[in-house]
Amino acid sequence: MKTIKAGVIGATGYAGLELVRLLLAHPHAEVTAVSSVSYAGQAVSAVYPQLTGLCDLTLTDDGGVIDACDVVFTSMPAGHAEPVARRCFDAGKLMIDLGADFRLENEADYRQWYGGQYADPALHQQAVYCIPELHRARARGAKLIANPGCYVTSACLGLAPAVSSGAVDLKTIVIDAKSGATGAGRSLALNTHYAECNEAFAPYKVAAHRHTPEIEQVLGGVAGVPLTVTFVPHLLPANRGIVSTIYSSLAPGFDLARVRALYEDFYRNEAFVRVLPDGAVANIKNIKYSNLCHISLHADTRTGRLIVVSAIDNMVKGAAGQAIQNMNIACGLPEGAGLVLAPPAF
Amino acid sequence: MKTIKAGVIGATGYAGLELVRLLLAHPHAEVTAVSSVSYAGQAVSAVYPQLTGLCDLTLTDDGGVIDACDVVFTSMPAGHAEPVARRCFDAGKLMIDLGADFRLENEADYRQWYGGQYADPALHQQAVYCIPELHRARARGAKLIANPGCYVTSACLGLAPAVSSGAVDLKTIVIDAKSGATGAGRSLALNTHYAECNEAFAPYKVAAHRHTPEIEQVLGGVAGVPLTVTFVPHLLPANRGIVSTIYSSLAPGFDLARVRALYEDFYRNEAFVRVLPDGAVANIKNIKYSNLCHISLHADTRTGRLIVVSAIDNMVKGAAGQAIQNMNIACGLPEGAGLVLAPPAF
Amino acid sequence: MKTIKAGVIGATGYAGLELVRLLLAHPHAEVTAVSSVSYAGQAVSAVYPQLTGLCDLTLTDDGGVIDACDVVFTSMPAGHAEPVARRCFDAGKLMIDLGADFRLENEADYRQWYGGQYADPALHQQAVYCIPELHRARARGAKLIANPGCYVTSACLGLAPAVSSGAVDLKTIVIDAKSGATGAGRSLALNTHYAECNEAFAPYKVAAHRHTPEIEQVLGGVAGVPLTVTFVPHLLPANRGIVSTIYSSLAPGFDLARVRALYEDFYRNEAFVRVLPDGAVANIKNIKYSNLCHISLHADTRTGRLIVVSAIDNMVKGAAGQAIQNMNIACGLPEGAGLVLAPPAF
Amino acid sequence: MKTIKAGVIGATGYAGLELVRLLLAHPHAEVTAVSSVSYAGQAVSAVYPQLTGLCDLTLTDDGGVIDACDVVFTSMPAGHAEPVARRCFDAGKLMIDLGADFRLENEADYRQWYGGQYADPALHQQAVYCIPELHRARARGAKLIANPGCYVTSACLGLAPAVSSGAVDLKTIVIDAKSGATGAGRSLALNTHYAECNEAFAPYKVAAHRHTPEIEQVLGGVAGVPLTVTFVPHLLPANRGIVSTIYSSLAPGFDLARVRALYEDFYRNEAFVRVLPDGAVANIKNIKYSNLCHISLHADTRTGRLIVVSAIDNMVKGAAGQAIQNMNIACGLPEGAGLVLAPPAF
Repeated sequence: MKTIKAGVIGATGYAGLELVRLLLAHPHAEVTAVSSVSYAGQAVSAVYPQLTGLCDLTLTDDGGVIDACDVVFTSMPAGHAEPVARRCFDAGKLMIDLGADFRLENEADYRQWYGGQYADPALHQQAVYCIPELHRARARGAKLIANPGCYVTSACLGLAPAVSSGAVDLKTIVIDAKSGATGAGRSLALNTHYAECNEAFAPYKVAAHRHTPEIEQVLGGVAGVPLTVTFVPHLLPANRGIVSTIYSSLAPGFDLARVRALYEDFYRNEAFVRVLPDGAVANIKNIKYSNLCHISLHADTRTGRLIVVSAIDNMVKGAAGQAIQNMNIACGLPEGAGLVLAPPAF
Repeated sequence: MKTIKAGVIGATGYAGLELVRLLLAHPHAEVTAVSSVSYAGQAVSAVYPQLTGLCDLTLTDDGGVIDACDVVFTSMPAGHAEPVARRCFDAGKLMIDLGADFRLENEADYRQWYGGQYADPALHQQAVYCIPELHRARARGAKLIANPGCYVTSACLGLAPAVSSGAVDLKTIVIDAKSGATGAGRSLALNTHYAECNEAFAPYKVAAHRHTPEIEQVLGGVAGVPLTVTFVPHLLPANRGIVSTIYSSLAPGFDLARVRALYEDFYRNEAFVRVLPDGAVANIKNIKYSNLCHISLHADTRTGRLIVVSAIDNMVKGAAGQAIQNMNIACGLPEGAGLVLAPPAF
Repeated sequence: MKTIKAGVIGATGYAGLELVRLLLAHPHAEVTAVSSVSYAGQAVSAVYPQLTGLCDLTLTDDGGVIDACDVVFTSMPAGHAEPVARRCFDAGKLMIDLGADFRLENEADYRQWYGGQYADPALHQQAVYCIPELHRARARGAKLIANPGCYVTSACLGLAPAVSSGAVDLKTIVIDAKSGATGAGRSLALNTHYAECNEAFAPYKVAAHRHTPEIEQVLGGVAGVPLTVTFVPHLLPANRGIVSTIYSSLAPGFDLARVRALYEDFYRNEAFVRVLPDGAVANIKNIKYSNLCHISLHADTRTGRLIVVSAIDNMVKGAAGQAIQNMNIACGLPEGAGLVLAPPAF
Repeated sequence: MKTIKAGVIGATGYAGLELVRLLLAHPHAEVTAVSSVSYAGQAVSAVYPQLTGLCDLTLTDDGGVIDACDVVFTSMPAGHAEPVARRCFDAGKLMIDLGADFRLENEADYRQWYGGQYADPALHQQAVYCIPELHRARARGAKLIANPGCYVTSACLGLAPAVSSGAVDLKTIVIDAKSGATGAGRSLALNTHYAECNEAFAPYKVAAHRHTPEIEQVLGGVAGVPLTVTFVPHLLPANRGIVSTIYSSLAPGFDLARVRALYEDFYRNEAFVRVLPDGAVANIKNIKYSNLCHISLHADTRTGRLIVVSAIDNMVKGAAGQAIQNMNIACGLPEGAGLVLAPPAF
């Protein structure tokens, strides 16, 4: 029975729309209300004809969503989620924010990378940041959950077992990430104009992407000591998926076999993370449209480096799917409810 | 409860794999056995890592599938399904064939277009051909169902209301169809080699595609008189989807408004066919990964032509999804069981 | 020696940029001045880094281009070329307009399809419309040339031999055209946003595209009688190229062999049009980045239809290349100067 | 005047075909003979309709090419070029090999990475390996030139100024490279089957690609000391282009400004290498179909790393274009003859 009333604020952006789509298949949650600044007053299925007959809710304003729902998902530009969070918190509603407003524990980081400051600092004390495989306990019973960034999820799932076990030299981490174009959202821009993005490829925001401090926060937490990484994202001519190819130097005493054993042990009970067998390579093709993270492990024995390849769907495990996973945990539902999707092969 | 044991013969081809994927989400059917000539003895998830943990069945031979299952789906090259059908029929198992062996009612057509003849003519008397929206009753209780071709489904759903009502001149039908590359299957060929298919576009088998007599058979049946059509397929640089743009001359007394009313009435109770509102255009984007057929209607008032645009996912409504829809009908299940998928927007 | 000073007004749009690129390889013309409303004052190579070191001209205003050049190419939104044409004409400069302002001979058509009227009707008397293979003589010594639309070029080269010879029934012409996304230009729009255009396909402006009256004007001229056609364009997930699949009923006495002979004769002396041999199919792949038009001929003997497939590169033969071909003719240069490009295979 | 008779052995592979295409535009060289094992006896334009009317030579055998030409380009699988080279050498013909047979100076490397040994060691003494910007002098008057690998060209042009000047710690070099699908050639394979390559992305041959020892040979030569690198290639869903994102730690005393000055000085007189201005990022889009290499420089000041992004067209600067550049040098022609192509923007 669908017992949870879920709402999506910012439902016509790509992450918001993906939330609606996934929630439609959830056995215990029902999409009860949706809002959109750009399309308020229209049916969500008028904006996305895919939803006709499946979800024909009228897009309202944010307050309408908060009032109507038990769980509020927010997918908004940086800085816009804070006031919504206050309203949810005061109303006792669980809010899961897919944006960046509550991700960084250190306000100084937020100021440096996002250029704003916290208007309601007390609220940030209530927020928990949760990649379920790393911070599951935090989400249980939480009222305000910061859902991780897409690149962060890919990089940190790929590195956590190595970093937490001392398998690699923490000063040598380089993350070369490639994302499909949905990661840039639905806003029009020249670099995602079809003829400029197709048959093109390049990095962007080289060593300057806002997900960098978030990666360092998560990995530093896992390692137990602060660390810095080099992170370079690239824009792929594809719709979905992130592959992070992650380089680091193996610590003395570690080789590929030992690292593999560590990873397999670390993710042994995880439904959504698969450490691929020797010889396999993580590929967007094999996880798209699913909540899975595929990890393949490789060593360059000539140079002593570990190479981890981590693949997720940026819209699912990197956004809407993980948000639902967090909802499931917070609400005491089976963690995989609504998320056990067989990915299509093509 | 999963009460139906389903098997897939030819499970590692694209249509077979899609059947496995969709059946995993079916509430009443369970994939019990799978076979493959090319990969017998391996786990299906070794061939398609997407399925790891979701379906790890070992690929067996055809007999193993027939013995183990209540419903057998076959996806094989032309000419290979007939002997399997005999074994299924004698064993009292429902077989749904995604290939062409049982689609053509007239053996002369089969000889002309496929170059072979029927080895077991009696069996063909048992077979029913079923596009559910047009021939639903045939499938109820059937034991051998010929699942329609992908182009045929797209074209005939697009034309049936017009043809059955006399709205168009039957001598003027031209079907210009465009299909994603999965329609060509998994067999390697130069025209689907990435660098030759990407940034390319052309028709193929111009006025010579094997789906032509099948289209004419279905439409002739709907019209009540024999007819011929011009059918030209094209290969799209995309993975999935078929758009058929269909031209015909409006019969005296018919205009767009009247035709629209006919279409809306014809499909009023259909869950998977949507006649789009005035101004909308059927697009692969809006139906991919779903069992939906979107139809948009247009008129060229200057030339008196009706233009119907029909979009389906060639792997779902054009193959595996429709096969499951047929199984549901044949087995007395809710027709949409396992098929009510919200299509992703990207 | 580069004796002709050529200028491009609207040089930062896609057609304008393609003109600059092609002119750089022209043996007798030199790009002397370029203008852009959006980027005036910047170097064209700052907008398009491809041109760095090859063309670093500063983008000026329109007047600057007219003053500096012998030949002025204009690539502007509808309605903007007329005043420029007046200035060119008065200054005795050859202008070749890649837009639609001077294409339609009948002002009533312009009003109907473009919604404006002619401010300077006398000027239109001076303009000549020229697809070189059909109207070559008009361009010789002309001072104002209307360069044809991309779809028009594809359709009319594909149909001219049949229409001019009475080989087809003029009342039965249907043109189903598919164009790469550069045809939509550089302006941002949702339907050319990468994630909405990739893995998507649909027609647009069904039987309502502005190129329709231009196609009818050209074909009517070739036929010697007015005619109407049904024309439906589609947006391809590819950067370049147009394929028009053209249907019509063969007139009594005509079959494929006779039609092939007519086409081969019609284009016997044309450097840029190739009638492909029996069995070959015109494909974007084989003409992209070139000024070629490939035409393949097919018959549906069952229905008595001729099917012509015509492929061009929308940016070259459909825009900039044909404009240079027109310049060459107007200026008495070898018609193929600067245009004999071997197309890449991938 | 076309004074050099050039031949291509292996003309129907992608690199061979690209050689033919580029040579057609060369002012001093003429394609005189072509060969192909797979298509001997056919016209090259029957295999590649692009070339119809531009190059209709009949594909012969290797001997025919050697006899007919002054310069022989070979594009063959590993191990096949050695006997051809002997015949060319004995006949006094210049041979430029686009394969790997003569690239590695150390036979032990060849044995380790290619699994074969040299049948004709004396011949290898005659061979020179030449990336023109690094080894120009070697090619002057040479009779046997090993043309560099595509990844090698991209990586080494990106690193040479830094490595030769001591700007980076040689033990910290990581090269993350991404290549379009033409890099895999025309041979059919599942990973380049359209539906498996499109909307997919992954690395391959992780830390195990044959270009690794060649990169180390070139960079070791530039540095004056042996070195090792970590090299990981990825397959892009695009036809053309390589982007290498290269990471290394800045040596004490070096920062981005100083490194930029070094690069600008290093490539000051090079026609085909552009060090992009501050803020720009090297992108496949801006160099495709050209012989250019774009290099952008970035620093991660938080971690002390230099990040170099190097973009080339794998088929031009990474193969056929560079081979022609080498021919020009060897033959005393202007180095850029036939190669000054304005790249298309889309």
